[in-house]
Amino acid sequence: MAECGASGSGSSGDSLDKSITLPPDEIFRNLENAKRFAIDIGGSLTKLAYYSTVQHKVAKVRSFDHSGKDTEREHEPPYEISVQEEITARLHFIKFENTYIEACLDFIKDHLVNTETKVIQATGGGAYKFKDLIEEKLRLKVDKEDVMTCLIKGCNFVLKNIPHEAFVYQKDSDPEFRFQTNHPHIFPYLLVNIGSGVSIVKVETEDRFEWVGGSSIGGGTFWGLGALLTKTKKFDELLHLASRGQHSNVDMLVRDVYGGAHQTLGLSGNLIASSFGKSATADQEFSKEDMAKSLLHMISNDIGQLACLHARLHSLDRVYFGGFFIRGHPVTMRTITYSINFFSKGEVQALFLRHEGYLGAIGAFLKGAEQDSESRCWRP
Amino acid sequence: MAECGASGSGSSGDSLDKSITLPPDEIFRNLENAKRFAIDIGGSLTKLAYYSTVQHKVAKVRSFDHSGKDTEREHEPPYEISVQEEITARLHFIKFENTYIEACLDFIKDHLVNTETKVIQATGGGAYKFKDLIEEKLRLKVDKEDVMTCLIKGCNFVLKNIPHEAFVYQKDSDPEFRFQTNHPHIFPYLLVNIGSGVSIVKVETEDRFEWVGGSSIGGGTFWGLGALLTKTKKFDELLHLASRGQHSNVDMLVRDVYGGAHQTLGLSGNLIASSFGKSATADQEFSKEDMAKSLLHMISNDIGQLACLHARLHSLDRVYFGGFFIRGHPVTMRTITYSINFFSKGEVQALFLRHEGYLGAIGAFLKGAEQDSESRCWRP
Repeated sequence: MAECGASGSGSSGDSLDKSITLPPDEIFRNLENAKRFAIDIGGSLTKLAYYSTVQHKVAKVRSFDHSGKDTEREHEPPYEISVQEEITARLHFIKFENTYIEACLDFIKDHLVNTETKVIQATGGGAYKFKDLIEEKLRLKVDKEDVMTCLIKGCNFVLKNIPHEAFVYQKDSDPEFRFQTNHPHIFPYLLVNIGSGVSIVKVETEDRFEWVGGSSIGGGTFWGLGALLTKTKKFDELLHLASRGQHSNVDMLVRDVYGGAHQTLGLSGNLIASSFGKSATADQEFSKEDMAKSLLHMISNDIGQLACLHARLHSLDRVYFGGFFIRGHPVTMRTITYSINFFSKGEVQALFLRHEGYLGAIGAFLKGAEQDSESRCWRP
Repeated sequence: MAECGASGSGSSGDSLDKSITLPPDEIFRNLENAKRFAIDIGGSLTKLAYYSTVQHKVAKVRSFDHSGKDTEREHEPPYEISVQEEITARLHFIKFENTYIEACLDFIKDHLVNTETKVIQATGGGAYKFKDLIEEKLRLKVDKEDVMTCLIKGCNFVLKNIPHEAFVYQKDSDPEFRFQTNHPHIFPYLLVNIGSGVSIVKVETEDRFEWVGGSSIGGGTFWGLGALLTKTKKFDELLHLASRGQHSNVDMLVRDVYGGAHQTLGLSGNLIASSFGKSATADQEFSKEDMAKSLLHMISNDIGQLACLHARLHSLDRVYFGGFFIRGHPVTMRTITYSINFFSKGEVQALFLRHEGYLGAIGAFLKGAEQDSESRCWRP
């Protein structure tokens, strides 16, 4: 019913970190032993970020200095091991399809709401749409947070703090994933968030950002058109179909238009001239796999070109991709990367994020944590 | 089997001019009584431009000066009417689906090839793909002309010479079509040619132009995806379905995501958040009309945004749309115009062309006419 905690890096089934360790920050220290969570309800998916401390045993080793002349210690062991309990602050993630919003709220009620909890931080359009339902079911006050603010806050946070968060994807390279090192100077950059639809945001500083564009051709289109074409209603199943398909059976390629003569003209015959161009006139059935692959290419290429054009218009050379469309799928990342390279002639770099789908939820969580921290400071 | 001569302005069934009068130019005067034609074979459609002179009777009126004192003339009629035969040079158009390429060649053979004809000017990918077939069937030499050169040549020609060629489309305005006046200073402009796929070309002078972008989401995608979704294999039938559909039944709108609360946020609830976003999870059948409309919106919006971004990147404020995707359809023109206005904040203007689908064929025809003219000049 609900898919659990895929953090976004790798398609479902891969081994994934389902939580991140929070940095030892003033804000998070205040949270210990408090149950805190935030919810981001988009057009299709509900994302939940929740905090908990993880208690674990750590072996500590103390070694002695044996270089001295202290012969009494010679028969003592060279080191001392002690086992200590340690508490780590972690942020956990889970996602649900919006269809199961009530089940999601039940989960929250059973696991995250205690007598101290008064407020739930919520963002995304669903924070407005489901406000009454949430307040009624959880008996909490919904604190609606601005979608863009949360998205950017979450993105800035993971870029600065989470190791191995952003990476370049290059198929056929070794390694395929090349991780970017965290550092505090992340601005300016372009964020392309691909949820049901696409939002394109220019981020200049921690607090200054601008929505510069968007597209209705996003994850909801892959899911929606994919469902109509293949009768498969599951997003991950569609991705799985796509990974086994041959888009050239459905797409009209340059070589189909030129009948092989493209070579003498220096054209790449494998370029897609028209997505789904073959299904217009060919009298045949098309396989689900081929259609899903063609659809994935169509959408990824389009987003790549839009991202590249916006980056060039605003003189930005790095584009980060967020949102739950990509979910670490190689075909998607490869196509987006290819498209950006092609249209920018290599001048714009596409970067993917391991926690791509949870940026808004992380942002909303941080907003709540900050408010909590401030209210504690001001408490008499 | 083959659709005849729609010149592009208005959906099928409208009264259309199926030919244009050629300007009284040196080149065209040489053509009289010669059978000349050109062919442009794209990914889906074959376009034919052919020349013929039309002989018609013209009434000429000569009026006399009766202001003088010459009383002898008082009982004569005040004017004299003479009927003269006149010959007008006209360019005619016809299009065929590529599936019927052989029928198209039969038409050419029966109507346009005579003993003097030695060469056929051909452009588009099909000029390469079908070269052998054309040469064999027509017993003519195929003179392959560069696709881009022909496209731009044709576009420059109609913009400079054909009255009422380019127009702005504004739904709910009176008049809906606002025609641009021809004048020789047409550069620079952006041409977005929407055939099976999309080509975006920056045109700076008569001879200087640059392919700056393109997209695989074009007319072939509308046709191909439309055929898969509705089981209708006819492009015009798909357009007809679209004109009767409600895209909001299939698309996820901003108001669907926000559940009505968009108003308090100053968002337009009717914006499409995700094309086909509703068909991902809703357990229902979607009507052919609604799906076709959603598809048309998706593609037109996307092309509009791409066009706008390329125009802004190259500091151009006029975009002309060519190619056989639009075919004067109000929904398409409205959506493209809306999209360009939205993304450029009104700074970029979308212009449509009455002979949108025949630019390449017109360009190839002109190339041939020029070559003919030159060879006559050089003939001893």
